[in-house]
Amino acid sequence: MARTMVDLNCDLGEGYGQWTLGEASDDALMDLISSANVATGFHAGDPNLMDRVVRLGVERGVALGAHPGYRDLQGFGRRVIQAKPEELVNDILYQVGALREFARRHGTRLQHVKPHGALYMEAAKDETLSRLMVEALLKSSPDTLLFCMDVSKTCAVAEAAGLPVIREFYADRDYDRSGSIVFARRMRPLDPAEVADKCVRACCDGKVRTVEGDDIDIAFDSICFHSDTPGALAIGTAVRDALLKDGLRIVAAADLVAQTR
Amino acid sequence: MARTMVDLNCDLGEGYGQWTLGEASDDALMDLISSANVATGFHAGDPNLMDRVVRLGVERGVALGAHPGYRDLQGFGRRVIQAKPEELVNDILYQVGALREFARRHGTRLQHVKPHGALYMEAAKDETLSRLMVEALLKSSPDTLLFCMDVSKTCAVAEAAGLPVIREFYADRDYDRSGSIVFARRMRPLDPAEVADKCVRACCDGKVRTVEGDDIDIAFDSICFHSDTPGALAIGTAVRDALLKDGLRIVAAADLVAQTR
Amino acid sequence: MARTMVDLNCDLGEGYGQWTLGEASDDALMDLISSANVATGFHAGDPNLMDRVVRLGVERGVALGAHPGYRDLQGFGRRVIQAKPEELVNDILYQVGALREFARRHGTRLQHVKPHGALYMEAAKDETLSRLMVEALLKSSPDTLLFCMDVSKTCAVAEAAGLPVIREFYADRDYDRSGSIVFARRMRPLDPAEVADKCVRACCDGKVRTVEGDDIDIAFDSICFHSDTPGALAIGTAVRDALLKDGLRIVAAADLVAQTR
Amino acid sequence: MARTMVDLNCDLGEGYGQWTLGEASDDALMDLISSANVATGFHAGDPNLMDRVVRLGVERGVALGAHPGYRDLQGFGRRVIQAKPEELVNDILYQVGALREFARRHGTRLQHVKPHGALYMEAAKDETLSRLMVEALLKSSPDTLLFCMDVSKTCAVAEAAGLPVIREFYADRDYDRSGSIVFARRMRPLDPAEVADKCVRACCDGKVRTVEGDDIDIAFDSICFHSDTPGALAIGTAVRDALLKDGLRIVAAADLVAQTR
Repeated sequence: MARTMVDLNCDLGEGYGQWTLGEASDDALMDLISSANVATGFHAGDPNLMDRVVRLGVERGVALGAHPGYRDLQGFGRRVIQAKPEELVNDILYQVGALREFARRHGTRLQHVKPHGALYMEAAKDETLSRLMVEALLKSSPDTLLFCMDVSKTCAVAEAAGLPVIREFYADRDYDRSGSIVFARRMRPLDPAEVADKCVRACCDGKVRTVEGDDIDIAFDSICFHSDTPGALAIGTAVRDALLKDGLRIVAAADLVAQTR
Repeated sequence: MARTMVDLNCDLGEGYGQWTLGEASDDALMDLISSANVATGFHAGDPNLMDRVVRLGVERGVALGAHPGYRDLQGFGRRVIQAKPEELVNDILYQVGALREFARRHGTRLQHVKPHGALYMEAAKDETLSRLMVEALLKSSPDTLLFCMDVSKTCAVAEAAGLPVIREFYADRDYDRSGSIVFARRMRPLDPAEVADKCVRACCDGKVRTVEGDDIDIAFDSICFHSDTPGALAIGTAVRDALLKDGLRIVAAADLVAQTR
Repeated sequence: MARTMVDLNCDLGEGYGQWTLGEASDDALMDLISSANVATGFHAGDPNLMDRVVRLGVERGVALGAHPGYRDLQGFGRRVIQAKPEELVNDILYQVGALREFARRHGTRLQHVKPHGALYMEAAKDETLSRLMVEALLKSSPDTLLFCMDVSKTCAVAEAAGLPVIREFYADRDYDRSGSIVFARRMRPLDPAEVADKCVRACCDGKVRTVEGDDIDIAFDSICFHSDTPGALAIGTAVRDALLKDGLRIVAAADLVAQTR
Repeated sequence: MARTMVDLNCDLGEGYGQWTLGEASDDALMDLISSANVATGFHAGDPNLMDRVVRLGVERGVALGAHPGYRDLQGFGRRVIQAKPEELVNDILYQVGALREFARRHGTRLQHVKPHGALYMEAAKDETLSRLMVEALLKSSPDTLLFCMDVSKTCAVAEAAGLPVIREFYADRDYDRSGSIVFARRMRPLDPAEVADKCVRACCDGKVRTVEGDDIDIAFDSICFHSDTPGALAIGTAVRDALLKDGLRIVAAADLVAQTR
């Protein structure tokens, strides 16, 4: 059956104190998406910013998720810290709870959890970390969706354990043959139209071109782009417009789950 | 009517990483008290320690509260940071939520919130800070008890707004004529028997001797002692034993509220 | 005798990790000034950024100074932390030394020390803090210039103790009748031409208009503008051009001292 | 020629704020050693503690070195952070300079630099990190000794580049056949007499027993024990007494270099 809906997510609130990240404002990006991943203070984000982004999400009707990262403001959570899995799970719970309290304040609930940067990538390949994270989330927030890649250990472990997952497609990252994204600390400039075409193709044909030059099958429920990708606003706008033009509805992950499962 | 019950609370989990605070272990102190204030990472405490203390509290049947402080690990939250009240309230919500997630993980709920150190004292005298904190807690956790001093702005504001409070008596701090504790970064050694007598007198007669040499009336629901007071274990033991010997029951704040209101 | 030279200084390196501050780059601002105040990691700045700015200063022939602040990344050092003066002095020495090591690496020396934000303002009015700071700097770096306001306790104490000072005039801050700047966390937009006129008048006539509407005498050796003031690049350029057009030479503080004393 | 002297070093100042590490005080340990490695704030140590330990070292005639670690207070610098080598070198310089400023304040100089924990072990096996660190130290502090293991890349690179090294023998760590210590986050209790025998044997015969059960040759100039090893004071005392009883003089690394090279 052809896909009729997709979620569109973006990382927001990734400033800190006086600092903002990227040229696109959270306000502008919030208008493009159905789910926002809110930085929770370890790699970016601070309580004031979290409060602001949650309030904004409620105002705009955008679903909210926690975006916990490594405790590394300087490295923006893009450097692996070789901590024990149980330590990392505690770091994740701490951050998820912190954001959840702002959701409670503003009368909403957390839709999802999505680890950030290097922590997302480590969990993707580390079954123990994924398993301990899933077990902890099943206890503290069993109805919270976990965002991950289809090919990841995280996805396999969560599905086996009964934690609902949302699989992501990365608009602004390259793929390799394994179906994993290629993680890079610096990115080449992207053409919004090309990115939009890539997303539409992934939605309609379920295919993506890899860095090796092959086409592979790709399975996902949500499309992600990053607020700190140069040209983020243009990219997000192009992707959104192309999806809508192609007849797809952009709906929050939780609604997607409610309507399809 | 004579008092038959009192809550006994102590700050726990005030280490960080490899470091522990005070000579008494959380395990030993947990056996003495009915309510534990758990450090939430800004002045002390880290996610691993929070997880451990929450698990311990559940095992021992001790009620748990969040103990948020200024963002000041080096100063242990005993130095005022002149931030805006709304910034401090966001810091408090962040920390409360972080601890709540560990409570959720271990199948319990947060009984109370108690600001730490200089933040507690600032709120006690700053009506705006108290009001904004109370308004935020009424939204994010309306059923959570707020620990404070009877004479504080915090108490007045919370009672007026309908947020349930627990008023504290400090076993190991001196009082001045205003009914406020005298905040000091370094403390003189205390005699456990004297401290216990002071607590029993406060419970039975509602009186405490001030640093000025007067007796004043003191109203409270819970007795607090600090884990980093030298001799904390002996002090806590002496207080607990004296209260029990005097016929008082030591019950968690929430049970106290349920039974007396 | 008429003034023929003035130092022009600006705070640089005030990003952190992935984040940058203000719309003007350190590279562009470096071309306008004779002295750079380099953030040293507590309120902003990180080792990578410090290394970069020091290297840049050496390449462009701009003198370098340490810009230590309160330990408060979130508040950008613009919130007072009520620490003991001796604690703050240790924080200052730590940061000064950290930057000095990068100066050593790149074959230059520290010209000056200038406390940042709220720490600068606290020292200005706190004689004990100023005295302890001056005593410490006299030991660790007796040949390092201390930047301060003419009317400050810092200036009085340093001059009495024999630590060389450079008095500052603030291009982008308002003055009150006391000769002190009015500290504000948010600033109104400034007109570069007006700011330039104000600086030229201060240089030539030694006068500045206060927020109360009076003219007061103002004594200084260096003009400061802030990299995070909106329009910083235009303001700095206008000030520099106006000074040069008026026949003033812009020389680093150390050269000013060497030539005038 | 038989060895007549050896340096004895220990990590000091490894508390933070209110927290102290291990049961042995810096004061007691300082009396046992000839060189102190002072924690510099990233994994442990704060400016107040650094000032105190440097003053103590000057009073007791103990040589001082910087002990920079990963930026990881929670993990005590014992977890690898996968940062770029040039980022880590900047972190090292920052910390070295910070400590050097306190040495300047107290009228002494830095004798050495010794990376801490996981950073020391990473450098030992990573030639690029070692090379960049050595190149930077050659510029910022060419006369500062670098502490390392004989079998490490750090040692090879430093000797080739002309940076003077001091090779260490670890009293309280186990060795493997490669001549490297076996890094462990938790340690078994040690018998002081056994540790002392191991040190004397290493000094006199140049041999150590490995975890595999073999004897290997071991080359070193300084013996290290850790302040957070359980029983550190007894271990340090036993080692010191055994060395002295065996006729060895305990001299600071710099004096060793002056007398033997």
